Amino acid sequence: MKLQVAIDRVPLDVAKELAQILDSYADVIEIGTSLVKDYGNLAITTIKQATKHAQLLVDSKTIDEGHYEFTQGFKHGADYITVMGAASLDTLKTCYQVSEALQKTMVIDLLEVQDEKIAQISGFDNALYALHHSIDREDEFDAVATVTKFHQKFPTISRLAIAGGIDLLTAQDLAKQGIIEQIIVGSAITKAEDPIKAIKQFKEALLS
Amino acid sequence: MKLQVAIDRVPLDVAKELAQILDSYADVIEIGTSLVKDYGNLAITTIKQATKHAQLLVDSKTIDEGHYEFTQGFKHGADYITVMGAASLDTLKTCYQVSEALQKTMVIDLLEVQDEKIAQISGFDNALYALHHSIDREDEFDAVATVTKFHQKFPTISRLAIAGGIDLLTAQDLAKQGIIEQIIVGSAITKAEDPIKAIKQFKEALLS
Repeated sequence: MKLQVAIDRVPLDVAKELAQILDSYADVIEIGTSLVKDYGNLAITTIKQATKHAQLLVDSKTIDEGHYEFTQGFKHGADYITVMGAASLDTLKTCYQVSEALQKTMVIDLLEVQDEKIAQISGFDNALYALHHSIDREDEFDAVATVTKFHQKFPTISRLAIAGGIDLLTAQDLAKQGIIEQIIVGSAITKAEDPIKAIKQFKEALLS
Repeated sequence: MKLQVAIDRVPLDVAKELAQILDSYADVIEIGTSLVKDYGNLAITTIKQATKHAQLLVDSKTIDEGHYEFTQGFKHGADYITVMGAASLDTLKTCYQVSEALQKTMVIDLLEVQDEKIAQISGFDNALYALHHSIDREDEFDAVATVTKFHQKFPTISRLAIAGGIDLLTAQDLAKQGIIEQIIVGSAITKAEDPIKAIKQFKEALLS
């Protein structure tokens, strides 16, 4: 199981420092949407320069203009870029074409996407599908149960990631469950008093 | 009827020049999503400095982290910010609270939003609802017919905008129809050989 660490809502110099110290532990470092919208492509190139080991995910949350946004993101150093499952099927197809042509990965963010639409967009074999509970929503999120249900409903979607307030215990449970390919952790690592200690704990949890 | 001009997919210095020359004709200048994702908040502050007359719309296409993105956008100079209708109701509520508190305007982008969801999110009285046909979609878009149908289905939504390949003839027809508050024009003005001549033609069309 891969560990993706999301960096969000911090000044770019802090993001750069975090990326540097987390680089050798994280499989994937995520340049959060807040960094994209605050700093643009400069966020991507800055974090790219600060990392040697981890792959980079740009949380672009593209919902239109797929060709432009994906081309720009990969050009500036992304290995993965996110598109919203709520986008039109034509937008998803365009993003997938750009990703496949460059041998990069399209990540489909399933935030607020209903089952009927998921069925329509389930055929992108090399895409990573990200189960995502909105940071703004006030209801509870049971990650393990969500994954079980999703896997039963959509057994042909093989590459799954999950995001939304994942803590250490949830990470451990998801690792035991063995369905998720990539787990996305944000503030539990980046806002921890000691981010290196925190990421080491997550790495251990994923092995146990 | 107000005229909103969308600037997209150009380097920031070109965007700044366009904003300067269109400022006295446009009611609203839109900092397109491509500028937001390429340059971040710098796009907003640069276009803000370049304009005196027009109001500024930041096409953030927020779909999560509503409080953060709307606070940042308004702080840097936006008068209007867009949120996706596809976002969770909690995200929309947060964006609306921030907008109302600052006496700014939330614009709800209805791209790919189904009727059932529109009904759920139709109660934000001061918000501007933007009918929007994806640039990536390959099907045709009849703007006038779309507005008629929308208005019949959702008569309580009074503030309407429309975007998606609007040309001069369509602008004229929409003006005659008299339902739309704000018309959004992009490349028909910004990519015209003579953008000032083009925007003057649109202004005239809206008066006729």
